[in-house]
Amino acid sequence: MLSRRHPQLNSHGELIHLLSIEGLPKAVLTHILDTAGTFLSVNDREVKKVPLLRGKSVFNLFFENSTRTRTTFEIAAKRLSADVINLDIAKSSASKGESLLDTIANLSAMHADMFVVRHSESGAPYLIAQHCAPHVHVVNAGDGRHAHPTQGLLDMYTIRHFKKDFSQLSVAIVGDIVHSRVARSDIHALTTLGVPDIRAVGPKTLVPGDLREMGVRVCHDMREGIKDADVIIMLRLQNERMSGAMLPSAGEFFKTYGLTDDKLALAKPDAIVMHPGPINRGVEIASAVADGGHSVILPQVTFGIAVRMAVMSIIAGNEA
Amino acid sequence: MLSRRHPQLNSHGELIHLLSIEGLPKAVLTHILDTAGTFLSVNDREVKKVPLLRGKSVFNLFFENSTRTRTTFEIAAKRLSADVINLDIAKSSASKGESLLDTIANLSAMHADMFVVRHSESGAPYLIAQHCAPHVHVVNAGDGRHAHPTQGLLDMYTIRHFKKDFSQLSVAIVGDIVHSRVARSDIHALTTLGVPDIRAVGPKTLVPGDLREMGVRVCHDMREGIKDADVIIMLRLQNERMSGAMLPSAGEFFKTYGLTDDKLALAKPDAIVMHPGPINRGVEIASAVADGGHSVILPQVTFGIAVRMAVMSIIAGNEA
Amino acid sequence: MLSRRHPQLNSHGELIHLLSIEGLPKAVLTHILDTAGTFLSVNDREVKKVPLLRGKSVFNLFFENSTRTRTTFEIAAKRLSADVINLDIAKSSASKGESLLDTIANLSAMHADMFVVRHSESGAPYLIAQHCAPHVHVVNAGDGRHAHPTQGLLDMYTIRHFKKDFSQLSVAIVGDIVHSRVARSDIHALTTLGVPDIRAVGPKTLVPGDLREMGVRVCHDMREGIKDADVIIMLRLQNERMSGAMLPSAGEFFKTYGLTDDKLALAKPDAIVMHPGPINRGVEIASAVADGGHSVILPQVTFGIAVRMAVMSIIAGNEA
Repeated sequence: MLSRRHPQLNSHGELIHLLSIEGLPKAVLTHILDTAGTFLSVNDREVKKVPLLRGKSVFNLFFENSTRTRTTFEIAAKRLSADVINLDIAKSSASKGESLLDTIANLSAMHADMFVVRHSESGAPYLIAQHCAPHVHVVNAGDGRHAHPTQGLLDMYTIRHFKKDFSQLSVAIVGDIVHSRVARSDIHALTTLGVPDIRAVGPKTLVPGDLREMGVRVCHDMREGIKDADVIIMLRLQNERMSGAMLPSAGEFFKTYGLTDDKLALAKPDAIVMHPGPINRGVEIASAVADGGHSVILPQVTFGIAVRMAVMSIIAGNEA
Repeated sequence: MLSRRHPQLNSHGELIHLLSIEGLPKAVLTHILDTAGTFLSVNDREVKKVPLLRGKSVFNLFFENSTRTRTTFEIAAKRLSADVINLDIAKSSASKGESLLDTIANLSAMHADMFVVRHSESGAPYLIAQHCAPHVHVVNAGDGRHAHPTQGLLDMYTIRHFKKDFSQLSVAIVGDIVHSRVARSDIHALTTLGVPDIRAVGPKTLVPGDLREMGVRVCHDMREGIKDADVIIMLRLQNERMSGAMLPSAGEFFKTYGLTDDKLALAKPDAIVMHPGPINRGVEIASAVADGGHSVILPQVTFGIAVRMAVMSIIAGNEA
Repeated sequence: MLSRRHPQLNSHGELIHLLSIEGLPKAVLTHILDTAGTFLSVNDREVKKVPLLRGKSVFNLFFENSTRTRTTFEIAAKRLSADVINLDIAKSSASKGESLLDTIANLSAMHADMFVVRHSESGAPYLIAQHCAPHVHVVNAGDGRHAHPTQGLLDMYTIRHFKKDFSQLSVAIVGDIVHSRVARSDIHALTTLGVPDIRAVGPKTLVPGDLREMGVRVCHDMREGIKDADVIIMLRLQNERMSGAMLPSAGEFFKTYGLTDDKLALAKPDAIVMHPGPINRGVEIASAVADGGHSVILPQVTFGIAVRMAVMSIIAGNEA
């Protein structure tokens, strides 16, 4: 009997691509977080390299530009001793009218071992994973509004680092949730890891009502939304939303949904404040909070390198 | 007695630059193909690196943008353990009014070991090879309409891989031959390797009549041109030609010179179909042919990495 | 008792950042030049790598574009076996409105070990050095009109290589001194190393009078300025100055201040001619001089790699 193949796992249940947190069992998530822990010490060492991906070719395929995210993957891959090739896709074959799948087939024929893909269209990394050669592994570095699984995983690493146990937590995600692949990945991860109280906080135009079906509490009142929260995840407000009809102004948004010390006082006394970066000071978060004692925004960045090293080394070690 | 120096060979007849296939003896071509064979197995290994160029600095100097070709050289150099520096020439000194030779003199003074050069002007790599320091090696990665020798060599590798022996073959090159440095390099290589029947197939505007002087049969009828061919090399039709007076339309071109299953049936039953990529599906080649059983387009890409590793390692090992 | 921290030296007087030559003791400069000497032989070796920075992550942060200077640092870092990450800052977070210090904090959190910074604003590398994590080292690769210390050091290396002793020299710096961070760094270095006769030569609009307070002789007459000089440092005339009111025309400038064989005859018979590059032939320097026997412009480039290797390896070995 033939079963339909899982898009991310092989027949032994091992991770071969990382496309989305949705659909991954808790054990797989926990294995990634545990592995990331071992890499954190690598990053503190005098010589920060391990030879796990030596001789492997990792291609950064950024169809949508993001220097920051590309850099984190480049560092992670180089610390694993991989050869990294950055492709500026906009300039390359894409502009010569070559199809996505022809580009992928060509790069696979060059004996690529891994594609790190960012794309403005949701689902593009799935398409690539379905069509690439069996020895090639795909990591989704953000696709449309759909998923940003390594960001979700580094957020989970951060929460576990500071809070130890997921089973008693209240986590508030605040801001532009409807456009956020980070929010979506976080919600799937928090749910899988057993967080009992997840809240989506923001104006009606930016928080989709159907989140309730995912077991998320929707709050349009910021103070209610972060009350007694253990973890507050602030989302970046994209500048381009500001000019549209969806929002009054950055100043108005900050007044209502910006995280200030004042509002933060409503959360648990030991609450942590997270943000995927880059932050807009004075738009979604006050400088005093971003730089304050509750902020774990910079540890998130540090953990992000270790989590990406973990993901790459795990999938490279599993066969399709 | 002083003899005029060969532009590509040292006094022992060894390759020190790869500028063009024209003028290279058969033994040199065969040595490159044989060496490429040994590197193919490197690319299949778990760890794909060999230390042949360790500590060498390879500069990719792409005065004309080509992400795909640059990537193949970058991969090849990294698998040989070289340090690779990509120079975006358009942004650099060239825009500050520095001459080509001053740029080259400066990079040579940085102890560059190899320049991989693509340039829109025919002959630019020769100029560089003539003027650079004796320890520096030059690889032509495509100059104007003149030559693209590594493409020619990977095409020869592909033909030899599938057909074993050059001495009995009929090879048809189809499409925009007049603008194609690939066609020119292929014709020189096929001639040197002893292919008895080389055909140039395309409309009068795109196939120069003087090819006959090179021993090539010129055919303006596609069916006649590919009849009983062992090898069909389809060329990319540059989009920019389409808008000019040289061609009626992409649809018209496909009807007359596009390779379809129908026309392919006229070739030998075991004919192979090649293309330098990126392909224009439905312009010069039907998707059914590009993805069909006769197509060796993706193996060409794989062989291309091995051939570039071979060229780089051979010239780096020979002294001027 | 707390003393105000030195911006570049730790409490043992060791170099931890290279921000400016101003304020560095002679012993530190001499140590860098001596160390560069040992790296020159590395660059001549068959395998040009030393493992001094293995596993270290060096970030090239070029807020102002300069392919040439970035390339020299990239080569130097790779020859020290570092992982190099080039950030195209214009495209990245800067364009998303992130502040310089937030960008730096984020990259530090990725366990960066060194930032090589070029910035159009004078002082930017100081700001970064003040705010980055203690384990991070900063090299100024040119900030505004302020300083370009590695260029200053490679110029000193060049002078010492050809002239051995600084204590008897006459050095003329010629051209657009007012806009030149190279001139400023050279003057500080020459003064610290004990050169008794430093001259600034150029038109009144381009040579600031307050140089006299730094012990520099200001000459508006070129022939007087280079008379009996041992060393002539020609500066690049930026094209953008030409169109302004500051200068008549390139032709006029060349006639008065361009270095020709004719004028060069006024200097010492064994004078050396230097230039930071890229040169404008026929604007500030005649081709015959640039390519002539007195020119040491290309050795400067070679020494520049060794000097940058020296700076990076020295600061990486010292703790804050």
